[in-house]
Amino acid sequence: MLGRFLPKEMGFFDFFEKIAALTIEACNELLSLATDSQNIAGRVARIKELEHQADDVTHECIEALHKTFITPIDRTDIHSLIKRMDDIIDSVDAATSRIVLYEITQMRSESRSLAEVLVKASREIEQAVHNLRNMKHPEKVKENCIAIYQLENEGDAILRSALVRLFKEEKDAVLVIKWKEIYERLEKATDRCEQVANIISGVVIEAS
Amino acid sequence: MLGRFLPKEMGFFDFFEKIAALTIEACNELLSLATDSQNIAGRVARIKELEHQADDVTHECIEALHKTFITPIDRTDIHSLIKRMDDIIDSVDAATSRIVLYEITQMRSESRSLAEVLVKASREIEQAVHNLRNMKHPEKVKENCIAIYQLENEGDAILRSALVRLFKEEKDAVLVIKWKEIYERLEKATDRCEQVANIISGVVIEAS
Amino acid sequence: MLGRFLPKEMGFFDFFEKIAALTIEACNELLSLATDSQNIAGRVARIKELEHQADDVTHECIEALHKTFITPIDRTDIHSLIKRMDDIIDSVDAATSRIVLYEITQMRSESRSLAEVLVKASREIEQAVHNLRNMKHPEKVKENCIAIYQLENEGDAILRSALVRLFKEEKDAVLVIKWKEIYERLEKATDRCEQVANIISGVVIEAS
Repeated sequence: MLGRFLPKEMGFFDFFEKIAALTIEACNELLSLATDSQNIAGRVARIKELEHQADDVTHECIEALHKTFITPIDRTDIHSLIKRMDDIIDSVDAATSRIVLYEITQMRSESRSLAEVLVKASREIEQAVHNLRNMKHPEKVKENCIAIYQLENEGDAILRSALVRLFKEEKDAVLVIKWKEIYERLEKATDRCEQVANIISGVVIEAS
Repeated sequence: MLGRFLPKEMGFFDFFEKIAALTIEACNELLSLATDSQNIAGRVARIKELEHQADDVTHECIEALHKTFITPIDRTDIHSLIKRMDDIIDSVDAATSRIVLYEITQMRSESRSLAEVLVKASREIEQAVHNLRNMKHPEKVKENCIAIYQLENEGDAILRSALVRLFKEEKDAVLVIKWKEIYERLEKATDRCEQVANIISGVVIEAS
Repeated sequence: MLGRFLPKEMGFFDFFEKIAALTIEACNELLSLATDSQNIAGRVARIKELEHQADDVTHECIEALHKTFITPIDRTDIHSLIKRMDDIIDSVDAATSRIVLYEITQMRSESRSLAEVLVKASREIEQAVHNLRNMKHPEKVKENCIAIYQLENEGDAILRSALVRLFKEEKDAVLVIKWKEIYERLEKATDRCEQVANIISGVVIEAS
């Protein structure tokens, strides 16, 4: 009940941190799955669960936004930030559900590298939104964003070499179709981390 | 001439209802086409025509928006709503023109199920925008939105089983490429129905 | 130093013209590459360079926007315009880097036709943003936009016949996958020219 007397504005940062934590957990599940090809179905189901929880956080955040008159950062930024954060976990879920759907039983090594990039990027995002609470240290937030940009470049490079190897080595065209989609969806997740970093950068610039 | 003295705000709901009616007609053509594989080319051409008409409605609506000072609902919502409604028919047209382009002569059963979902969803959208005129009954609009969310989930499930069957049964990789794209474009149309429902929900929340 | 006393508003049109010039150069490289299949890697690398420069222009423009209180045209339009202009060169770069990645050594004739459309469309965009400076002649800007819409339709028609021929003639499913993606990315670049024209049209309508 005390919560109702707390400054309402705190709520938005809580939503951001909550969805960041869910994203980290989903990326960790992805990494485990890509590492040992064991219990793929169970891990994919867990990622789907986390994705649903992230949807709920997003909806709650947007409802809170509609009911709040004064917001700690620009309304549009809150809306974009929560939506774009939710997009990351959506991409991870889309990629992993394809793994089950396409009956993939053996993971390819580049999926592990992409998962590692995503674990790192989601941790940087968590720190960035945490640091957003304290606008006195914008340089810390900027460092997180720069790290995310570098990780996105890394993800892009991994996708490229993954595709080169796939097209060179895989003779089964249907498997090419399947893996190309999985890789591209994972790389899209790293792109979406970059989009989140862009919004966060904008918030910091505006506040400075 | 009398029209000029009518409240200008009415116009926007007219645009929404007009584009909703065009969408329903396009989805019905899609359903007929998916049901009997007869006169595919003619039906696809008719959908293209409807898509052009929807473009015209969208342009007129946006021009009207630029010229209107006071709007019945938030300007940004009007802009997003008409654009996202137009996106639905664009996706239907994109899917069906692929059917002709790829010289598909035999429809697969799941395309019919996706068409049925789209017919239902477009009818819910028509009712939702109609009910938006009368903000006294927001619960009706909410019911329409919930129905659309359920239909989108249904569309997603159909896509999944369609892909599983396609990858299992179809040995011709080129046919896999063709049908995967057609299915995904149809499912994207249901996603876009959900996006429309999201905007409509937002309008209702804001008004309450 | 004199620059600081010049009206700040001039800056935004400079950014638009700069990115338009980079886009024209990238499209010309694409056309050369599609014409003679010589030095593909070198030209693709040059396009990547131009794409990075366009990114820098976009970032500078958005930073300037955050620091500018009074803008010559609507803030949102400046933001959308620079982002959507940057998207064009991104699509060209995405298409051409696939050419190298997929180890394509022989270009197909339709890639040349798409490149020609892109060269023409990017020139129209350059003229349109140049003409935006002088709002006294909105009809000129409108002519540029109409030309862009026609070019986008042309691009769409080329994509269609390219896909028909590809699916009919190419028996290697993996080559179908590769070229389908390259064509679609090139056609997406023409779509993005249309989106730029839409924003420019909106600016002209708002100013009239």
